[in-house]
Amino acid sequence: MSEEKKKLSLIAFSGDFDKLTAVFTLATGAAAVGYQVNIFFTFWGLDAIKQKKGRSFIGGNFLTKIFGFMMGGLHVTPTSRFNFWGLGPKIFRYLMRKNNVATLEELVEAAVALGVNLYACEMAMHVLGLKQSDFIHEVKDTLGVATFLEISEGGRTMFI
Amino acid sequence: MSEEKKKLSLIAFSGDFDKLTAVFTLATGAAAVGYQVNIFFTFWGLDAIKQKKGRSFIGGNFLTKIFGFMMGGLHVTPTSRFNFWGLGPKIFRYLMRKNNVATLEELVEAAVALGVNLYACEMAMHVLGLKQSDFIHEVKDTLGVATFLEISEGGRTMFI
Amino acid sequence: MSEEKKKLSLIAFSGDFDKLTAVFTLATGAAAVGYQVNIFFTFWGLDAIKQKKGRSFIGGNFLTKIFGFMMGGLHVTPTSRFNFWGLGPKIFRYLMRKNNVATLEELVEAAVALGVNLYACEMAMHVLGLKQSDFIHEVKDTLGVATFLEISEGGRTMFI
Repeated sequence: MSEEKKKLSLIAFSGDFDKLTAVFTLATGAAAVGYQVNIFFTFWGLDAIKQKKGRSFIGGNFLTKIFGFMMGGLHVTPTSRFNFWGLGPKIFRYLMRKNNVATLEELVEAAVALGVNLYACEMAMHVLGLKQSDFIHEVKDTLGVATFLEISEGGRTMFI
Repeated sequence: MSEEKKKLSLIAFSGDFDKLTAVFTLATGAAAVGYQVNIFFTFWGLDAIKQKKGRSFIGGNFLTKIFGFMMGGLHVTPTSRFNFWGLGPKIFRYLMRKNNVATLEELVEAAVALGVNLYACEMAMHVLGLKQSDFIHEVKDTLGVATFLEISEGGRTMFI
Repeated sequence: MSEEKKKLSLIAFSGDFDKLTAVFTLATGAAAVGYQVNIFFTFWGLDAIKQKKGRSFIGGNFLTKIFGFMMGGLHVTPTSRFNFWGLGPKIFRYLMRKNNVATLEELVEAAVALGVNLYACEMAMHVLGLKQSDFIHEVKDTLGVATFLEISEGGRTMFI
């Protein structure tokens, strides 16, 4: 037990720019000091791992295509407060660059470089009509709850 | 310690359809693989365990009656994103049925069947003017923070 | 290990009145039964530890000043649901007083009195242009993720 790496697991449920920033800040911060980090993307959080294509009508049927369009990927995510039709995230990006804080896109890249494990939630993919090929190839696997609980056992788990 | 059941405890704060779906998906998934699961419903989350009466003016005084009306129970909960005046949850329910994913109501039933422990937060009940008799009878008890921390000790706890 | 105090650590990300109430209810409840409690304020949650000055244009430049104004401190925080342009928190405060439940401001005082450790997130302070002198003096320190993970190691951590 004492030989094992410490673990931090995050359930990334939210698709908000600021909450996703929190997910990746925690993930990269923990990975940098030696934690095994697992992120389990579900519901709106799946937006963070979509391939950069902008808004597009992916998904199997009419309704999931609509969701596919509305959830347009990382660079069009809103902030949970003060979004102002997309101005909020732009201001954040500007402030982050200006203050030498890594932007969300840079944090995602850093997480991948630091070996953070990215997983997608099977159930949410079914509901939203998403396939693993819609995600960036760094996504390791699609999981159900039971497997996620097993992987994250013995460490802390947060729901964001 | 190794003899004891693993524990998963969830604080269900949100009354959003999608977040409550996450609560019950985690709860049933964990219970199915042998975890002891405790859900502590507080604030808007109390909506999930109200008796199915639809919107009604329960609660002791004028203001709590208003809350009682606005929080109309599980089947009128909104989604945290793309709610569109109640269309969001309807679309989700449709997609869940279509894709053979359990709907929220089915998940609640499954949780009860799997022996998930449901608790209500005493403090939030005081604020919102709710009594235990307003809830489904599967709710085991009303608790304060100290008792909840004791029950959930030794396992993971997430705030949703 | 058995000699050590139990630990509860909370990442206070949200600036919503009701979620901050949850943060401080958990914190004071846990501290009252002997837990070591750490709260790490980040993003909108930083609003909870600002000095009581009301809305003011603190922050280094034009954009952060705007954020400084919009995040006007504890007594102007909105509720996550049914805010109605600030009426929501007023109703909650009224219901809490009426039902002898501690109000948010009383909970913050109680947390300080019970020795709850308050920390501010370094990164979010950079982004929002806040300095430690903008916070109440009970805030112990400003931390990065790595230090927070170290402090909170060995106990439960929740993201609120």
